[in-house]
Amino acid sequence: MSDSKTIFFISDGTGITAANLGHSLLTQFSDLKLNKQFRPFIDSVEKARALVEEINSLSTQSGEKPVLFTTVVNDTIRQELAQSQAIFLDFFHGFIEQLEKHWQVHSSARIGRAHGLEDNPSYSARIDALNYTLSTDDGLGAQLYTEADVILIGVSRSGKTPTCLYLAMHFGVYAANYPYTADDGSEFGLTPFLKNNRSKLFGMTIAPDHLQAIRTKRKANTDYASLRCCEQEIQNIEELFLREKIPFIDVTRRSVEEISTTIVTQLGLARRDA
Amino acid sequence: MSDSKTIFFISDGTGITAANLGHSLLTQFSDLKLNKQFRPFIDSVEKARALVEEINSLSTQSGEKPVLFTTVVNDTIRQELAQSQAIFLDFFHGFIEQLEKHWQVHSSARIGRAHGLEDNPSYSARIDALNYTLSTDDGLGAQLYTEADVILIGVSRSGKTPTCLYLAMHFGVYAANYPYTADDGSEFGLTPFLKNNRSKLFGMTIAPDHLQAIRTKRKANTDYASLRCCEQEIQNIEELFLREKIPFIDVTRRSVEEISTTIVTQLGLARRDA
Repeated sequence: MSDSKTIFFISDGTGITAANLGHSLLTQFSDLKLNKQFRPFIDSVEKARALVEEINSLSTQSGEKPVLFTTVVNDTIRQELAQSQAIFLDFFHGFIEQLEKHWQVHSSARIGRAHGLEDNPSYSARIDALNYTLSTDDGLGAQLYTEADVILIGVSRSGKTPTCLYLAMHFGVYAANYPYTADDGSEFGLTPFLKNNRSKLFGMTIAPDHLQAIRTKRKANTDYASLRCCEQEIQNIEELFLREKIPFIDVTRRSVEEISTTIVTQLGLARRDA
Repeated sequence: MSDSKTIFFISDGTGITAANLGHSLLTQFSDLKLNKQFRPFIDSVEKARALVEEINSLSTQSGEKPVLFTTVVNDTIRQELAQSQAIFLDFFHGFIEQLEKHWQVHSSARIGRAHGLEDNPSYSARIDALNYTLSTDDGLGAQLYTEADVILIGVSRSGKTPTCLYLAMHFGVYAANYPYTADDGSEFGLTPFLKNNRSKLFGMTIAPDHLQAIRTKRKANTDYASLRCCEQEIQNIEELFLREKIPFIDVTRRSVEEISTTIVTQLGLARRDA
């Protein structure tokens, strides 16, 4: 009997939904050794049969039933997969049935719609937002800023760019960033433009030693990466946030997903992923 | 009775998993008018009670029970939410129980782990990949290319950059891109470096009229955005793909998610999201 648990993530589309929920569930079993197998685009009975053979063969060899995480919509393909010698966790079917019953409608039962293009009205909004963010990254005149839903303020390497990209790609939010650099050690202030767009501002701060570590990876042994410089910049920017009443988040132990969700929630931004 | 259906996406963490599966389920009900409400970070009984009051009040007013999509881990919070006058679809609990039973272990029942930082070993890999992609975007010497897991080849505006960013952010794949421009109309070829890294190459093509529309948005009335130029470049690049046996994908009607998943699957790239 194998000591690792095998999970198959199976979908008739990209499998992103299966991977996403599956990953979330598995964080609750972090002590287990897992062997994850991804099988997207299982969109025909033939592919499903071949996959069932693979699963059964593995199940027999290892002496342990694999677990299937699936988001297959098509009934025939789903039933094919359900016949395997595996634990079948269907992330779709039961919920679809409950929604159909509650809303008294029939679902459309179309394959792989979730992360497709034509059936995703938010898609072009998200790509437009992404292109916007790329065009504004660390550059830009005030004209581009006026289109922003949010302008992130933080010192260099506090995570503005990944956050902007995530906000754009997932929420379709037009996110720009305004970098602060303080080579001369002077106090930070808001430009007149930023003052006039105060409601769009969101600050990011970070523990100085964490910032130092990130900057050191980039430019070791520079003043820029020194603890003294990091401490000074962080102190300046936090004073700015407090003085100008700019909401801000400490990103030190937070993921881009958490930071982005917090920003969207706190500023009440319209989510174009919905 | 209201004609739109209200859905609450509720989580004790970011709610990204609830939104993701919820969105996927709802693509099967695309004819309905939906009112989506996002409530992340419901991580205390007090917040859950306040939310239940809001839900009940809405339910009474509208005469229609809202639907709750939840990924709450904590039992007490979950039970609080389950008492609302709403249809309660729990994306977590039932599956966790099934996995506990099958694997004969107890889950850790910790809140909001799914998109957090400390419990997500793949997180820094994904951020590193994102920084890599940002550093290589449309620039770069051969040295940076050697770190790439995949090098995307395509003409300007065929979607290389969004795809690279998605590959990095979601799969932790080191994705670089190699832009082809053909101002002189000459045939495309592979540089010696690309020839030596053939296994990393993946091509992107697109319908010329679609490319023309994208380029026109950027630079209207230029030769660059002319149909003639788009057709010529696409013909050149497809000939290159065929001549050099580079796998490629037509991105015309595909989302970044579909394109990225196809690339990862076809090249058999290691997914660092797992």
